Amino acid sequence: MPTQIELARDGNISDEMERVAVDENLPVEEIRENIAQGRLIIPNNLNRKSKVVGIGRGLRTKVNASIGTSTDIVDPDMEAAKARTAEENGADTLMELSTGGDLDRIRQTILAGVNLPVGSVPLYQAFLYAIKQKGSALKMDPEYLFEVIEKQCEDGISFMAIHCGINRITLERLKRQGYRHGGLVSRGGAYMSAWMIENNRENPLYEHFDRVVEILRKHDVVLSLGNGLRAGAVEDSSDRAQIQELIINCELAQIGQDMGCQMMVEGPGHIPIDEIEANVILQKRMSRGAPFYMLGPLPTDIAAGYDHISAAVGASLSSAFGADFICYVTPPEHLALPAPEDVKVGLAAAKIAAHIGDMIKRKDRDRDRRMSHARRKLDWEEQFRVCLFPQQAASIRDSRSPSNTKTCTMCGDSCALNIVDHYFSPYLSEDKKG
Amino acid sequence: MPTQIELARDGNISDEMERVAVDENLPVEEIRENIAQGRLIIPNNLNRKSKVVGIGRGLRTKVNASIGTSTDIVDPDMEAAKARTAEENGADTLMELSTGGDLDRIRQTILAGVNLPVGSVPLYQAFLYAIKQKGSALKMDPEYLFEVIEKQCEDGISFMAIHCGINRITLERLKRQGYRHGGLVSRGGAYMSAWMIENNRENPLYEHFDRVVEILRKHDVVLSLGNGLRAGAVEDSSDRAQIQELIINCELAQIGQDMGCQMMVEGPGHIPIDEIEANVILQKRMSRGAPFYMLGPLPTDIAAGYDHISAAVGASLSSAFGADFICYVTPPEHLALPAPEDVKVGLAAAKIAAHIGDMIKRKDRDRDRRMSHARRKLDWEEQFRVCLFPQQAASIRDSRSPSNTKTCTMCGDSCALNIVDHYFSPYLSEDKKG
Repeated sequence: MPTQIELARDGNISDEMERVAVDENLPVEEIRENIAQGRLIIPNNLNRKSKVVGIGRGLRTKVNASIGTSTDIVDPDMEAAKARTAEENGADTLMELSTGGDLDRIRQTILAGVNLPVGSVPLYQAFLYAIKQKGSALKMDPEYLFEVIEKQCEDGISFMAIHCGINRITLERLKRQGYRHGGLVSRGGAYMSAWMIENNRENPLYEHFDRVVEILRKHDVVLSLGNGLRAGAVEDSSDRAQIQELIINCELAQIGQDMGCQMMVEGPGHIPIDEIEANVILQKRMSRGAPFYMLGPLPTDIAAGYDHISAAVGASLSSAFGADFICYVTPPEHLALPAPEDVKVGLAAAKIAAHIGDMIKRKDRDRDRRMSHARRKLDWEEQFRVCLFPQQAASIRDSRSPSNTKTCTMCGDSCALNIVDHYFSPYLSEDKKG
Repeated sequence: MPTQIELARDGNISDEMERVAVDENLPVEEIRENIAQGRLIIPNNLNRKSKVVGIGRGLRTKVNASIGTSTDIVDPDMEAAKARTAEENGADTLMELSTGGDLDRIRQTILAGVNLPVGSVPLYQAFLYAIKQKGSALKMDPEYLFEVIEKQCEDGISFMAIHCGINRITLERLKRQGYRHGGLVSRGGAYMSAWMIENNRENPLYEHFDRVVEILRKHDVVLSLGNGLRAGAVEDSSDRAQIQELIINCELAQIGQDMGCQMMVEGPGHIPIDEIEANVILQKRMSRGAPFYMLGPLPTDIAAGYDHISAAVGASLSSAFGADFICYVTPPEHLALPAPEDVKVGLAAAKIAAHIGDMIKRKDRDRDRRMSHARRKLDWEEQFRVCLFPQQAASIRDSRSPSNTKTCTMCGDSCALNIVDHYFSPYLSEDKKG
């Protein structure tokens, strides 16, 4: 079966392309052309039907929610609840990142429980298996790694973060720059780096990159080039190791596309707000416009407990500058495994950021305009129809009911809109009436 | 008694200037010079001692928390609790914006209950008194407005938002541009506009601006030029009416400074993220660098229920571009009067934004650097010492205790930092060790 990119290159329009065109209100020919050029992807899996979601040029910024057990907290029911919460609260995709318990079974349960495209990081399973079977991640057998990737494709995973860009060149940069203030924070990147150094071998995912691509291409799964050397601290942002890996990942993206596989590139991480634009520009230039999946970024390291707010600041900018896909961050980030309520809050913050960026990148202002008209008219029903979080908004308003149902308890009778409506409404221009 | 700006112009160093120099780790001569030039203020009141807080060029971005009753919810005890919550959670200033109940008494209670500089909007009281005594805000007596300003100065208010820049010129711009999508949202601005139109009179605060300045100068209270025509919707941002008022306010700032009064200019409001820099540049250029107090801004209108997160995005950018002072936004913004818990959350979001901006504007990276070292070393005590919200962070970590106390439940044994420490620590350069 041809992949979406192969279909697009042959001039064919798939059902998935049609769906994306309708959802995003764009000409399907533009969708096809962008897929053909590697600028747009549709996470897919020939073995599993899921919600059709386009990611890339011209489209709304999409939001991923990550869930998964850890070695400390293995509660598959809670993870299933988090997955449902994510879907109900508007996540575009889900990443299942479990590292504790029966990984195959948890993955299959999650895949059965949601309709979203589901992503994974297959390195976790390969390294955890080595720990369990051989007592050390350093004894991981590369053959098993390829088997895990194949198995997860067969299970129905739609996109995989695979750390192919960590190679001898990138690790050399990391050493020569004097390592990092904040160390390495990518689990896949850390396991692979340790394995390479201990075994004095090249990363098999880089050395046999064509084999990785071939497995994913066969199932039309998106290969997301993992950011294993991403900075985990603002003070390490945009350092030589990170940009070296980005160069390699952009190079691999082109090779993968040429082989007929849908490709995406991942980015950091932790970046001060004045370096976000440069990171997006570099990724877009060096990859010839491949979709960019940014993990935040977090623009400060000292806001633990409220990192979803920091991440919203960074993600608003990455989305505005051209990132296509962002990953939510939940309040317990850096502190503990998230609970279902955290998923809801993290998603809210990320969806706000995606929209703030889309207001710039795509000039998406229709809902904001409708909201301003509804506010001027004190039309609360319309406000709840238009806003991103109607339940949350309504529950706050209802918790402190105003005596005058036109206004709210913040201003009550002193509502500015009420005071001046009579005087200025006669001057309202047509375009501002709503 | 001379004001801070008069002292500074005469080459005198006050105790307050010394305090600011120590707190901000800057030469006191630089503080004096910036005050003399009108680029830095110290909210003050000769009748009341309060915490010394500098606002302006070269200083950390400061955060205001607003509290106050509404006509719907009059609970002075709750407002006092909100004021204490604000002080305990690191607000730099407090604005007491009550519009319901015994306004004099509530103000005096709040002033007695906190050590922070307290700001107010005296127009509220003047218009509400007119409603109570004469049945309509439109019958407000300008003489009473000046009396209220004087009374609030005597009570110990340290800075006042006064809407002097709404005049016939600005209102004409508002009408000729066809009013607005989102109407007017400043309560003071709305009352004053309605009063001017109904009475066909110029704004007495503009017409007799020297009288306003003289009252505040006498008590060394900062005159904050209110943004009565601020956009209340992103679709109205940077419109002609808003910029016209900004021009007038910047003109008035210079006149007030020349008269020996400390002056500040207020800004919007609701702005998409790609217009924030322009707003800061204009205010700074047109006012010759007067401190800029930005109310957010909110970069989207459809996030009601989570507006503290949107505001953090806007305020991070305004702080980074040069705003000196930001106002928190709480989760119930646009929906209901905040409760004490909302004050805490709103402040957290605003403090994160102020810091993210200071990381750019002032290159404040020390705490972030210490945090990255602490994280690399998995030194949790140091992390809690350095981070902005130690109690919040610790309570999240403790709620899901890890089996290995070095790591957290997010990654457990798969902690990336733990995995690679052994391999890369030998390469750590001196500057990155911590």
